[in-house]
Amino acid sequence: MENKEYDKIIIGIDPGTNVMGYGLLGIKAGKPSLIAMGVLQLSKLDDHYMRLRRIYDRVLSLVEEFLPDELAIEAPFYGKNVQSMLKLGRAQGVAMAAALGRQVPIAEYEPRKIKMAITGNGAASKEQVAMMLQRQLSINPADMPSLLDATDALAAALCHYYESKKPFASTASKSWKDFIAHHPNRVV
Amino acid sequence: MENKEYDKIIIGIDPGTNVMGYGLLGIKAGKPSLIAMGVLQLSKLDDHYMRLRRIYDRVLSLVEEFLPDELAIEAPFYGKNVQSMLKLGRAQGVAMAAALGRQVPIAEYEPRKIKMAITGNGAASKEQVAMMLQRQLSINPADMPSLLDATDALAAALCHYYESKKPFASTASKSWKDFIAHHPNRVV
Repeated sequence: MENKEYDKIIIGIDPGTNVMGYGLLGIKAGKPSLIAMGVLQLSKLDDHYMRLRRIYDRVLSLVEEFLPDELAIEAPFYGKNVQSMLKLGRAQGVAMAAALGRQVPIAEYEPRKIKMAITGNGAASKEQVAMMLQRQLSINPADMPSLLDATDALAAALCHYYESKKPFASTASKSWKDFIAHHPNRVV
Repeated sequence: MENKEYDKIIIGIDPGTNVMGYGLLGIKAGKPSLIAMGVLQLSKLDDHYMRLRRIYDRVLSLVEEFLPDELAIEAPFYGKNVQSMLKLGRAQGVAMAAALGRQVPIAEYEPRKIKMAITGNGAASKEQVAMMLQRQLSINPADMPSLLDATDALAAALCHYYESKKPFASTASKSWKDFIAHHPNRVV
């Protein structure tokens, strides 16, 4: 699929070991709109590797179908314990691998930052994020998903779009492609 | 490369965010031997995504070059803090993705378990593991690497070989392929 109808496509991913959310945002003439969103249910799979494989396969197929220009990932930096963080890191890792393998630059945002970008409140609920997304992207209420992991992922994509529009974007969450472009001497 | 000369090839990976070690073990008529081992230096790369991408690319190229039947990964389950475990999880995740994407089953072993399998002592030093590997695989001393991440990775592969020979292998570290074969009703 060639996405000539959009100037840019951003894929948002909210990777978890029970549910993975994804959302595709299209930008046309400076206006973001919903292309697709959904969830991948993983909780019925007992096997850890099968879950990782499903995440990898789904992100890869989304990347190949929609040819996104960038991937934005919701990435909590703090977790309950080292065990859950290791599992989360693996889920993030396989999702990132699917993008890295197709030369799609990655940006990551903390949940609080995404909520702030979408609702103006870093402590907003998932429902508030979904409602603001629906309004900002003029999504038909009938098209809103029942699982809020999908809207969380779409929110990551929209947050990334807002961040990329800032004239002096922080370098904290920039992709490695940008990093190389700006620091050629630091890559050996 | 078709590996007709071996009955089975196991790739061992010791993924870290500073150095990744790898080792390839060939089994021929029940006798394991060294095919190749080495390290991927990542510490000079400041960018986190670049490191993940290097890990993914290297594991994928090793999988494509040597066509291993199984991947064994050294996976600590406990770490200093949630930050380091998230980073380690990502490094493991991208390495696993390269195997999962090529249908290579994964098994993981704790460092203590690997040391026990190779030296008989779960608290053995890396040097002791390297020495025992050299002896068990009859490796020419001149072929021993200076970085012990390579021997650690090879040790993971040899540990997996020893485990797979056990008549009643524990299911704890079995691959998802085995899991499906044994629990078809639990995969939805």
